[in-house]
Amino acid sequence: MIVGVLGAGQLARMIALAGTPLGLDFIFLDPSADACANKLGEALIGDYNDPKLLAQLAERADVVTYEFENVPAEVAEFLASHTQVHPSPKALAVAQDRLVEKSFFFGLGIPTPDYAAVDSLESLQQAMTTIGYPAILKSRTQGYDGKGQSLLKSADDLTGAWELLQGVPAVGRIGSLPITTLLTSMDGGNAEDCREQSRPPSLAVGRIGSLPITTLPPSLAVVEAFVPFNREVSIIAVRSVSGEVVFYPLSENLHRGGILRVSECSANDPMQQQAESYVSRLLEALDYVGVLALELFEIDGRLLVNEFAPRVHNSGHWTIEGAETSQFENHLRAILDLPLGSTAPVGNAAMVNFIGGLPKTEELLAIPHAHLHLYDKAPRKGRKVAHATVRAENQQQLSELVKKLTALADQVDDS
Amino acid sequence: MIVGVLGAGQLARMIALAGTPLGLDFIFLDPSADACANKLGEALIGDYNDPKLLAQLAERADVVTYEFENVPAEVAEFLASHTQVHPSPKALAVAQDRLVEKSFFFGLGIPTPDYAAVDSLESLQQAMTTIGYPAILKSRTQGYDGKGQSLLKSADDLTGAWELLQGVPAVGRIGSLPITTLLTSMDGGNAEDCREQSRPPSLAVGRIGSLPITTLPPSLAVVEAFVPFNREVSIIAVRSVSGEVVFYPLSENLHRGGILRVSECSANDPMQQQAESYVSRLLEALDYVGVLALELFEIDGRLLVNEFAPRVHNSGHWTIEGAETSQFENHLRAILDLPLGSTAPVGNAAMVNFIGGLPKTEELLAIPHAHLHLYDKAPRKGRKVAHATVRAENQQQLSELVKKLTALADQVDDS
Repeated sequence: MIVGVLGAGQLARMIALAGTPLGLDFIFLDPSADACANKLGEALIGDYNDPKLLAQLAERADVVTYEFENVPAEVAEFLASHTQVHPSPKALAVAQDRLVEKSFFFGLGIPTPDYAAVDSLESLQQAMTTIGYPAILKSRTQGYDGKGQSLLKSADDLTGAWELLQGVPAVGRIGSLPITTLLTSMDGGNAEDCREQSRPPSLAVGRIGSLPITTLPPSLAVVEAFVPFNREVSIIAVRSVSGEVVFYPLSENLHRGGILRVSECSANDPMQQQAESYVSRLLEALDYVGVLALELFEIDGRLLVNEFAPRVHNSGHWTIEGAETSQFENHLRAILDLPLGSTAPVGNAAMVNFIGGLPKTEELLAIPHAHLHLYDKAPRKGRKVAHATVRAENQQQLSELVKKLTALADQVDDS
Repeated sequence: MIVGVLGAGQLARMIALAGTPLGLDFIFLDPSADACANKLGEALIGDYNDPKLLAQLAERADVVTYEFENVPAEVAEFLASHTQVHPSPKALAVAQDRLVEKSFFFGLGIPTPDYAAVDSLESLQQAMTTIGYPAILKSRTQGYDGKGQSLLKSADDLTGAWELLQGVPAVGRIGSLPITTLLTSMDGGNAEDCREQSRPPSLAVGRIGSLPITTLPPSLAVVEAFVPFNREVSIIAVRSVSGEVVFYPLSENLHRGGILRVSECSANDPMQQQAESYVSRLLEALDYVGVLALELFEIDGRLLVNEFAPRVHNSGHWTIEGAETSQFENHLRAILDLPLGSTAPVGNAAMVNFIGGLPKTEELLAIPHAHLHLYDKAPRKGRKVAHATVRAENQQQLSELVKKLTALADQVDDS
C-alpha cells in the first residue's frame, strides 16, 4: 500500500515514521530536494501544481494526504478525481480561508470570537466600531504561525496594519468556485442556517460586518476581537473512512510570537466534552476523514473556537509518546479505513518546540524521560527544527521536566 | 552523523526507525536488494565480506554496528581498523561460538547448564555418561532459532543427531586467532581463572569433558544438559562508550520449536538482581558497548545462563512501546556515547511474534492497544515476519490481550 503525501516536511516525516511499521510505503511531492521526509520514501521534487508530478502521484499512490492546508484547490480536486484524497478538498477549501472557516463555524453553531470581513481601510475602521479594541487583523489566506497578523491596540494601528496586509494575495474565489457558491453548497455551511440559528446571546458570533453572508465580498482580511482568554487549548480528533471517531485528551498550548512553544496533554479536562461536541459537528459537516486539530480559547469556563487545521498538528506531537496511539498513526489508520487506535494518555506528557536553533543532543538526552525529535532541517530564524516530548509519572515531575526543556529551547531560540 | 549497519533485516529497520528522530542517517550492507531496512537509508548490496563494499561502509559511516552475531571475524576486524565498531569484534568472537561463549561464562563465574565439547560420535557417547539425558547437541557455530540443534532423549538418538551436525562447518580458529589464544587473551576469560574459580557446588558448570580448557580441541559441537527450567527469561542490558550501564526489566519468554513466540516484560521480577549481576560481569569483561541480550533459565529460584546475543534482541521488542526508551534507541545512544535513556517500564507490555504468515492488518489493529510492526518480508516457513506489542493497565488485561494476539499468530503460523 502506497501513501502519497503533499509536502515532505516534519509532519510528513512523522507520518512516514508511524506508517513504516504498518507496512506502508510513501511517496512525497515537495519543491525541495532536501525536504526532511524524502529519505523515508520516494521523492517527487517539484511544484505542488506541476501537472506531470501530480499525475505521477495520483497514479502511484493508493491514497493521498497532505501535511499543510494551503494546497491549491485545483490540485486537491485534480488528485481527488484520480485517486482517494483524505481529507477532502472541501475541508481544505474551508480551512485555507479564515472568512469561509469562520462562516462555517457559525453555520454549525460553534462559537468564535467576534469578527468582521474587511476589504479596505475604511471598512476596517467601520468594523472596529463594533469589534472593539484590542483586535487582530488577519489575512484571509496564507497565514500560519502568526504570519499575516497584526495586533490592533487602538485606532492608531489601523493604517499600518492595513498596509502590512497588502502583500497577501486577495481571494474572491476558492479554486474554481466563487466563494458564495462554496458557502451555500457546503453541508452545514448554508448561509440561511447561519443567520437563523439561535445561539447564546452572551456569545456574539458570526457577524460579517453588516453584509449578509450570501453576498460575501472578495475581502482581503478578517478582523476579530482579541479575546482575554484564560488559556489556549486544542483538540485532536480523528475520523475514519467508515465514520469511526476518536478524540485525544485536550492539549493545553502556550504560544509566543504566534508560534506554538509548549503543548501539554490535559487528561480529564473539564472542557473536554465541550471541545468534543464542537469538533464532532465539524467532522460530520465536512464528512471529514483523517486527523483534524481544532484550536480554542477558554474564557471563564467557555470555549471559543479560533481555527482548525485539516491535518496532523503540532499541538498533537506529544501523542507519539504520550498517547496509546499517536496522531500520525491514527491519521493513517483513518485514511486507510483501519480500526482507529486508542487515544488514552500514557503518563503525563508534554511537548516543547525548538525554534530557530537546535539543542545539543547530549544535553537534551541527559534530561530524564526526554525524547528528541529532530526534523533534519537547517536552523533558520523562526523555523521549527525539532521538538522534545517528556512523559512523567505526575504533574509535579512533568512541570519540572518541561521547565528544563523550555530552558534549553530558550537558549537556542532566536526570536 | 551516519551509522553503518551490517545487515538490513528487521533489527536494522527498527534501529533506523529509532535513530531517524535523533537526526541520524543510516547506511546498510546486506546481500539482498530488497532487505527490509534498505528503504530507511542508503543500501550497499553485496556480500558481507565484499572488500569494496566494506571499504565504502568503513569510509562513510561514523560508527558501524550490526544486527547479527555471525559477522566473520576478519570483517569485524577490518571495520574496526578503519572506523568505530560497536560492539567490538571480541564480543562477536565469543558470541558466535558456543564453546568459547560457555567457557567465557565459566571464567566469569556465571553458571550455565552442564556441557561438554565433542568432536566425534565417540566423544559424544563418552560425554553423555557425565551429562546425562535429556540433553541437547548443538553445533558450535551458525545456529540460531533452534537450527543446528538436536534433542537427545536416550542413547538411541546419538548417531542420528551426530550425522545431522555434519553439514555445519567445523571451527578451530576464530578469524585469524587459534581458539586457545583467544580464550587466554580475553579479559575475564582467562583459562586459569576458569579452573581455579570457586562456585556453589550445587551448580555444576563449565566442565569441558575431561580436557583442560587451554588444550581445547577444534570440536564440532557442544552437548549440554537439558535443564528442567521453570521458565525462560532474558535481560536486555546497555553499556555506552563511557561505561554507563542500564538494564531493562526481565523479559519472560516462551519458545516453541526453538523460536521465540511471546515475550512479556516482568517488572519487579525476583530474579532481576541476579540477572543484572551476571550480565554486568559480561559487559565489563567484554568492555562491551551497545545492547546485549542474555538468555537465562530459571530453575527453582536460580538462574542458569543459556547464551547471549551481542545485539538488539527479539525478546526486547516490547521496549518500543513498553519502556520509556526502546532497546533500539538505547543501542544507538550507547554506541554514539550519548546519555542512556530510562529503561522504566511503561504499563504492562508484551510482544507476540508472527512467524511464517502475516495477520490481517485490520484484524490485528481491531485488538485494543495492539501495535503492529510489520517487517516487509515475504512470508516463508519459519520466518519472523512481524510482531505486535500490547501495553495494558494490569496483568489480567495483558493476559487477555496476549491471548487474542497469540490466537491470531497461531492462525497464520505454518510451523
